[in-house]
Amino acid sequence: MNSNECIFCKIVAGEIPAACIYEDDAVFAFLDIGPVNKGHALIIPKMHYEKADQCPAPVLSSIGAQIGRIAKAVASASDCEGYNVLCNNGRVAGQVVDHLHFHIIPRFAGDGCLQGWPAKTYADGEMDEMLEAIQKNL
Amino acid sequence: MNSNECIFCKIVAGEIPAACIYEDDAVFAFLDIGPVNKGHALIIPKMHYEKADQCPAPVLSSIGAQIGRIAKAVASASDCEGYNVLCNNGRVAGQVVDHLHFHIIPRFAGDGCLQGWPAKTYADGEMDEMLEAIQKNL
Repeated sequence: MNSNECIFCKIVAGEIPAACIYEDDAVFAFLDIGPVNKGHALIIPKMHYEKADQCPAPVLSSIGAQIGRIAKAVASASDCEGYNVLCNNGRVAGQVVDHLHFHIIPRFAGDGCLQGWPAKTYADGEMDEMLEAIQKNL
Repeated sequence: MNSNECIFCKIVAGEIPAACIYEDDAVFAFLDIGPVNKGHALIIPKMHYEKADQCPAPVLSSIGAQIGRIAKAVASASDCEGYNVLCNNGRVAGQVVDHLHFHIIPRFAGDGCLQGWPAKTYADGEMDEMLEAIQKNL
């Protein structure tokens, strides 16, 4: 079920033009029009899913299969020093368009992108509790 | 070919203990011991590949197939407001361990994680040039 209101669904349907990098039955990849760095690409499922946890495993698998080769092509074309593969889920995580998308972001030293990694530690026993809670929800 | 010097290879081999969330023939998932937020998980290929562009498509596909369900379990267990799926490739992109890994990072408002999204614009014709360069490298 695709959404009539979704800009990415409109791109997939050809109703809004996009610089298409790759397309198959399940996956569509195109250039972000507001790139963090030039070459910044997006890989999306053709069907409308909002977040990764709502997307069926076979679709995520199809997206996964394209990540490496598209990242390689983006890295070569942008001549970047590294790159991030990033999927933001929810406003608090930076998701702006509510259609699942994986960013491929070319990176250069000092580009001011994705700063902040406030690593924490687990108190005694806390990690085991978290592991148990995750496994219960798997 | 796995690396004798790689901490993630040692975790996969059971030589270093880890809080294992999930394991199959190709994929291993465990809790990050220095979490950005509690519940922060890592999904890695069992084989040693440094970056996404060096990892075979079937392996990335197997990782992709686990992303949704592990993200769902991490989100439930951590009671987060959103989450990022993030794969850093290269030092400039924040990669610290040179064994491909996808972070699943629970997010909370004001957590100071992954800030900075300096969006740019393409000059006339520049986007088409980039697209052509990417397609040539696909």
